[in-house]
Amino acid sequence: MQWGMIGGGAGSQIGNAHRVSAHIDARLRLTAGALDVDPDAGKRFGMELGIDESRAYGNWQEMLAGELAREDRVELVTVATPNNTHYEIAGAFAAKGFNVLCEKPLTMSVDEAEKLRRTVDASGKVFATNFGYSGYPMAYQAREMIRNGDLGDIRVVFAEFAHGFHALGDDQDNPRVRWRYDPAQAGVSSITADCGIHALHMAQFMTGQKITEIAAHFDRGVVERQLEDDAFLALRLDGGAVGRLWTSAIATGQVHGFGIRVFGSKGGLRWHQEFPNQIYFSPIGEPTRILERGDPALYEKAQLASRIAIGHAEGMFGAFGNIYAAVFGAIRGDDSGLGHNDFPSVEDGVDMVRAVHAATKSAQNNGAWTKLNDV
Amino acid sequence: MQWGMIGGGAGSQIGNAHRVSAHIDARLRLTAGALDVDPDAGKRFGMELGIDESRAYGNWQEMLAGELAREDRVELVTVATPNNTHYEIAGAFAAKGFNVLCEKPLTMSVDEAEKLRRTVDASGKVFATNFGYSGYPMAYQAREMIRNGDLGDIRVVFAEFAHGFHALGDDQDNPRVRWRYDPAQAGVSSITADCGIHALHMAQFMTGQKITEIAAHFDRGVVERQLEDDAFLALRLDGGAVGRLWTSAIATGQVHGFGIRVFGSKGGLRWHQEFPNQIYFSPIGEPTRILERGDPALYEKAQLASRIAIGHAEGMFGAFGNIYAAVFGAIRGDDSGLGHNDFPSVEDGVDMVRAVHAATKSAQNNGAWTKLNDV
Amino acid sequence: MQWGMIGGGAGSQIGNAHRVSAHIDARLRLTAGALDVDPDAGKRFGMELGIDESRAYGNWQEMLAGELAREDRVELVTVATPNNTHYEIAGAFAAKGFNVLCEKPLTMSVDEAEKLRRTVDASGKVFATNFGYSGYPMAYQAREMIRNGDLGDIRVVFAEFAHGFHALGDDQDNPRVRWRYDPAQAGVSSITADCGIHALHMAQFMTGQKITEIAAHFDRGVVERQLEDDAFLALRLDGGAVGRLWTSAIATGQVHGFGIRVFGSKGGLRWHQEFPNQIYFSPIGEPTRILERGDPALYEKAQLASRIAIGHAEGMFGAFGNIYAAVFGAIRGDDSGLGHNDFPSVEDGVDMVRAVHAATKSAQNNGAWTKLNDV
Amino acid sequence: MQWGMIGGGAGSQIGNAHRVSAHIDARLRLTAGALDVDPDAGKRFGMELGIDESRAYGNWQEMLAGELAREDRVELVTVATPNNTHYEIAGAFAAKGFNVLCEKPLTMSVDEAEKLRRTVDASGKVFATNFGYSGYPMAYQAREMIRNGDLGDIRVVFAEFAHGFHALGDDQDNPRVRWRYDPAQAGVSSITADCGIHALHMAQFMTGQKITEIAAHFDRGVVERQLEDDAFLALRLDGGAVGRLWTSAIATGQVHGFGIRVFGSKGGLRWHQEFPNQIYFSPIGEPTRILERGDPALYEKAQLASRIAIGHAEGMFGAFGNIYAAVFGAIRGDDSGLGHNDFPSVEDGVDMVRAVHAATKSAQNNGAWTKLNDV
Repeated sequence: MQWGMIGGGAGSQIGNAHRVSAHIDARLRLTAGALDVDPDAGKRFGMELGIDESRAYGNWQEMLAGELAREDRVELVTVATPNNTHYEIAGAFAAKGFNVLCEKPLTMSVDEAEKLRRTVDASGKVFATNFGYSGYPMAYQAREMIRNGDLGDIRVVFAEFAHGFHALGDDQDNPRVRWRYDPAQAGVSSITADCGIHALHMAQFMTGQKITEIAAHFDRGVVERQLEDDAFLALRLDGGAVGRLWTSAIATGQVHGFGIRVFGSKGGLRWHQEFPNQIYFSPIGEPTRILERGDPALYEKAQLASRIAIGHAEGMFGAFGNIYAAVFGAIRGDDSGLGHNDFPSVEDGVDMVRAVHAATKSAQNNGAWTKLNDV
Repeated sequence: MQWGMIGGGAGSQIGNAHRVSAHIDARLRLTAGALDVDPDAGKRFGMELGIDESRAYGNWQEMLAGELAREDRVELVTVATPNNTHYEIAGAFAAKGFNVLCEKPLTMSVDEAEKLRRTVDASGKVFATNFGYSGYPMAYQAREMIRNGDLGDIRVVFAEFAHGFHALGDDQDNPRVRWRYDPAQAGVSSITADCGIHALHMAQFMTGQKITEIAAHFDRGVVERQLEDDAFLALRLDGGAVGRLWTSAIATGQVHGFGIRVFGSKGGLRWHQEFPNQIYFSPIGEPTRILERGDPALYEKAQLASRIAIGHAEGMFGAFGNIYAAVFGAIRGDDSGLGHNDFPSVEDGVDMVRAVHAATKSAQNNGAWTKLNDV
Repeated sequence: MQWGMIGGGAGSQIGNAHRVSAHIDARLRLTAGALDVDPDAGKRFGMELGIDESRAYGNWQEMLAGELAREDRVELVTVATPNNTHYEIAGAFAAKGFNVLCEKPLTMSVDEAEKLRRTVDASGKVFATNFGYSGYPMAYQAREMIRNGDLGDIRVVFAEFAHGFHALGDDQDNPRVRWRYDPAQAGVSSITADCGIHALHMAQFMTGQKITEIAAHFDRGVVERQLEDDAFLALRLDGGAVGRLWTSAIATGQVHGFGIRVFGSKGGLRWHQEFPNQIYFSPIGEPTRILERGDPALYEKAQLASRIAIGHAEGMFGAFGNIYAAVFGAIRGDDSGLGHNDFPSVEDGVDMVRAVHAATKSAQNNGAWTKLNDV
Repeated sequence: MQWGMIGGGAGSQIGNAHRVSAHIDARLRLTAGALDVDPDAGKRFGMELGIDESRAYGNWQEMLAGELAREDRVELVTVATPNNTHYEIAGAFAAKGFNVLCEKPLTMSVDEAEKLRRTVDASGKVFATNFGYSGYPMAYQAREMIRNGDLGDIRVVFAEFAHGFHALGDDQDNPRVRWRYDPAQAGVSSITADCGIHALHMAQFMTGQKITEIAAHFDRGVVERQLEDDAFLALRLDGGAVGRLWTSAIATGQVHGFGIRVFGSKGGLRWHQEFPNQIYFSPIGEPTRILERGDPALYEKAQLASRIAIGHAEGMFGAFGNIYAAVFGAIRGDDSGLGHNDFPSVEDGVDMVRAVHAATKSAQNNGAWTKLNDV
């Protein structure tokens, strides 16, 4: 399947992650791109990646026009540009009938998110929001366990995504950090929109419950910052569970720091992204069991999402690759192999924009409970 | 040193923990006790433990009178009775000039706590509140590291004490659980006063900062309960740090669940009670180091609190034993060996009663920030 | 680069691993194959994978002839057929001037191995033996640390590759297991040639020392077997180190079980394949440090072998992908990107055939020390 | 119970461990001792520990005479003197009718060991050899699991006791290390007799099988040494299991390094002394379970050996304390509480002296299989 990318130029970590992940199953092939805000750099890098000169575009508008003009246009477009451009670009491609995989956060505002949702609904095309961690085999396994009642009624979800890479506070000297605490570029929230959002999505993904209300406290460990680098959120979910969530960019020593624990009336489980091939599952009154990716006793979704036998390590490219595989399956109407048509949707994207905004509003109101429907 | 106990009868876990810990260094010897609410059972059990018949008392009043009448009276009294009797019993012994080690929570109300503090101050005697986990060698190590600036300015403390032993919800059938959710016996709070309180104390102990304000959310995973079995607290500390704290009794699979992480401008650390002989210390920009109890490079306090070489496991009796050793040192004016006169005081006990009440009040007010001085 | 495979048909785990890994960087493209011992099945599966019908061959002889006849022939051939065919197939392709990546063990006998080495040497082409685990970024890191003297003089290497997947002993009913204990198919050794061989290679790879002598004990936990399912090897290396190695197929609970520890005069390290993104490094007299894949302070080789930032999980496809990247670099004379021309060679393959045969001979002689040069 | 010690003076780690462990249950009380090779230092230290001046002896001969002359003599004597004096001292006390707990190794030679065994048999008294690690609750649990067939027929035992505290090679400057590699003081073997012996004993203890034959390789990582600092042993046990054992003093980064894994036809387990409160148990074909000390579902022996609830850490003093408790029970004929009359016997001590000597002889013969009955 022909595939195009917007953003993700040379030196972009997420861009590379998309390319490795999309290619992992040899189903997609990068054949078009507008990869850099600098048109020449973008074209050059595209050609380095093997894109034909005619489809190494200078910007997304050229790419939209160019691909529309071709019969063999790309079937899927990945949008991996700065956050404040997602709305315009993803919306433009969706409106013209392209299938789209858009990076998170979907948009900067709730209003944009709702508009984009309507565009996507009208398009009838496939649209995914890249909450890529939900593609891990053991994330599917956790969701299936909960769906099947292995944990009973879910009572508490504890999620954290707390790393330490902004602890140095050298924002002014560090362009990779600076924009993250600049409201003009990052929007209303920093770490919550950047990392907390994954934990929020995973809480919904695993439990199958929607977050309805949030009470949040935002803090700045590096006090010069304009946006929060550490936040603490209480959640209420529509199935009766409560959530507790911590996200941070100043938790020195945590090299990624994304993990989740779910507790129900019949048992609990925990999973951590840094060691993603295991789930620790504790049926009430029994010893904790270590479930291993690749175990034939896992649920089928977890099996389909695995590419290698138990005991071997699989990593993030496999997880992202599963998102691509599911999107591929949805586009082609193909439910074979990994194409199980099960990926984070535009609705998930909208939900999470609302969650970030509700958290921000709550934090601005001293932690008052704030409904996602009220932002 | 002659030592007496009130409460901690046959079958009491905490009673046994006190006896093992107090005897570990062979400095104290249990020579008097009123060990059970049933006078006969208490006397019988006391004699089984080797207490002379004349000092195996039927209740604490008899013990107070009996010991006062002896010249060779006990030098230290441990109060390990139900929580709602601490105030009366500990106060009575302190008022009569006994040194006291009282279990947590110090009292049921803030008013009682302040009165007891005044009694203790007037007595001029030693009084300790048994936040026993702070006696772990690596808890001292963490405190000394922070005191010495190894972590820089402390920004965030993340503490959790979340276990799963009340997840079954069989309160009515289970006398060990039932009282914990009965306001008449447990007071205003359940898991926060029972477990969260240790995490609150440890946050103060390690950072050397006082908690000033709390915003809390209390929930009941077992909805029939009258008191919270899961709580989530945001903290503000007087040195500028913020705290995030989760405590639970329904986190199935966590067999103890007490741990703490501290993050500052120069580094972070984490410690977990289930594996108490290690601290994971991460200087900013460098790999995480595993500090081991018994390493001669640790701070002196941590050395003094260790009884065996690096690599061997030490456990909770050593930690409690260190509290006893410090109390012994304070009573005797002896700073040799483990007697380093450094233990949780009546003030710590009062602080923590305030913290629990502030959390409760906040939870009753939808998570409004509540000052410890306002309860 | 056009790439072909022999073996690795539908249902073959190792075949799939090769395809995912080879495609991960989008440098190679599977354009020819003889994928199955059943010609029709092989052709069908090849076409399913997108191979053109004209290059979906029925057997390796057809493929050799067919590709030789094309100007745009594949530049690299992977041999992933049963072990007892490696010699013939890899030799035939190498002799005709193809670059080859051959699965381990290189051959069944030392004599075959030496002949194949001579064929490769005469060909002037690239030839790799797939000790794929050595492609892990942290395996490169360990090697570079040792090369640079961070561990001092190496004294002891402790390696283990002990899993439990043959513990059931259901060989007769299980075709995936049966052949492994049949000397006609497996050769002189089972678990040593299958798994122990990776540990032997890693010991050489990390230390840069060659194994010269082996004393081995072979045992059969499932006594009906004709070949060993558990073995224990003492090693002597040419740089003065000694090795201890345990390999097993009956170690129930170990889901992969490949790990290595290296100890020198200045420090020690350990690495485990199930959690491949960390090395635990202990400089003598200092706390153990956790080195994380992706840390910019690692050696350059480890950086080049990483595809994503610190904290994310990378897995086996990345490791195999690095072997492919290095082979690609060697073929193209390209040292950019991951093509660092550093992969297990035909000589490594020969060494390891000798090691397996020396171990077998030693085990047959009650564990007598046996030189690799004497088999 | 009155209790005496020989050796274990001020600064002796093992002496302190004995005192803490013996006092942990408040059943024993140190009332006599000859604690130091320097008579004055020994007396002074004894009195510091609260021993009456009349029973703070200058040497063991005085203590033997003095205690024999008293009616209220000590009921148990612990021998914690240098290894080459165990035979004479433990033998003298046993011969005179004292119950004895002797440190390992029991004696320096097999001949001495057999003579001591006969002395003990003739005495009719209790005699224990302090393989203290076998007192851990989870060591009892492992043994009971194996006894009850939870692992099926035992096939392989993998044990290691490999630390790094002699890696510096500063023997001449370090009196705590120097004697360990001096044959005059340490005997025929160093690390095998010091640490490997515990792993050998644990293999017997857990499996209930006796080691019959050993093939061993001894090496010196610090080449100046006269005795081995690293050894590798293959074992045959009388129940059909084989053993693999590694012991080292130069494994930098391992701060204790004692662990064991046992594999049978129905499952496997592993246990590590540094984290002694857990067993990882893997029934064949099922996920690994984490068994926690204190879990009411454990076998009764493991329950009796625990002093605190699940989730709390227990450590080595509890393990040693269990040896004392069992010895106490045997002396008093009391099977209540922890006194379950189940401790390492003189026979265990003799077995292990034979094992060390068989290993040494094997190592001297290039790793030839050597029967324990032939040394």
